[in-house]
Amino acid sequence: MPKKSDKLRTMDKKQGYIQIYTGDGKGKTTAALGLALRASGAGLRVFIAQFVKGMTYSELFSIKKLPGVKLQQFGRDCFIHKEPDEKDIEAAKKGFEKVKKILKSGNYDIVILDEANIALYYNLFTEDELIEAINNRFRGVEVIITGRKAPQKLIDMADLVTEMKEIKHYYTKGVEARKGIEN
Amino acid sequence: MPKKSDKLRTMDKKQGYIQIYTGDGKGKTTAALGLALRASGAGLRVFIAQFVKGMTYSELFSIKKLPGVKLQQFGRDCFIHKEPDEKDIEAAKKGFEKVKKILKSGNYDIVILDEANIALYYNLFTEDELIEAINNRFRGVEVIITGRKAPQKLIDMADLVTEMKEIKHYYTKGVEARKGIEN
Repeated sequence: MPKKSDKLRTMDKKQGYIQIYTGDGKGKTTAALGLALRASGAGLRVFIAQFVKGMTYSELFSIKKLPGVKLQQFGRDCFIHKEPDEKDIEAAKKGFEKVKKILKSGNYDIVILDEANIALYYNLFTEDELIEAINNRFRGVEVIITGRKAPQKLIDMADLVTEMKEIKHYYTKGVEARKGIEN
Repeated sequence: MPKKSDKLRTMDKKQGYIQIYTGDGKGKTTAALGLALRASGAGLRVFIAQFVKGMTYSELFSIKKLPGVKLQQFGRDCFIHKEPDEKDIEAAKKGFEKVKKILKSGNYDIVILDEANIALYYNLFTEDELIEAINNRFRGVEVIITGRKAPQKLIDMADLVTEMKEIKHYYTKGVEARKGIEN
């Protein structure tokens, strides 16, 4: 096991990129989870911050089994459906402060900001704040951002952007979210 | 722990859907891996068949840590770049025979056919054979199909289709596949 200082030296030499997964289709959060799974297999350290989410998803149980992967939720136990209230804003702001430190620390090779686009959409924190935090990150850190409605400024600064485009969805057939598949 | 016969009875009552992740953008296989991770957390049993792949990806190490998830590769240790040769076809056909049995068995709640679209594209097996195998599956089995160039017939029969659309990719900047991120 290399010492932290060795890890930091290696990280400082590599380039970390910014990846965005956006769009209306299913697969954004799951792609980020898949990235965490693959990264763990390669011995990388991953921090997953879930914004606007505080529910007990099935993935939480699996994440605990993956070495080097940590997940923290910064939302309430329900989605924001209309307007965020004070508690939503407070939870997101607290999470964002934590994420700023994590990004700067070099303690993680990959930082996943799940549903950060939705947090921006609801103005829980601002685009400029997020961009500043990303620009101030430890050099080698890879940043993964998910959620619908990625703002253009973030797309412009990203190195990789995939739009998950909904071609067909079974909720139009009345299929509700299922345990182990959607949550 | 419920007996297998109980599991089969429960599965027979539920409806399994067909999900397709296609398109040129990054995120198809990772979304399927994320689905497996989530499903494992909910106690579901997942079989992942990787076609056209025989390389040691980092995800293989993580998958072993997830209860109920099994992964098997049915390809050689390199991608097909031009035309498949006899060995590619043999590996895929062998894999497809296995998959048919798996789909029918009821031993797995979710069957992931990673890169099956590419296998179809190269005629390693046919659309009609795949459709027949899916239609003959144990009733409750959820089927996840990934890979570029999903054929229209498969899209027509699917319940959910997401196109991973490439908006921007860092390979255009000369970034090569990285361990723990791409493989």
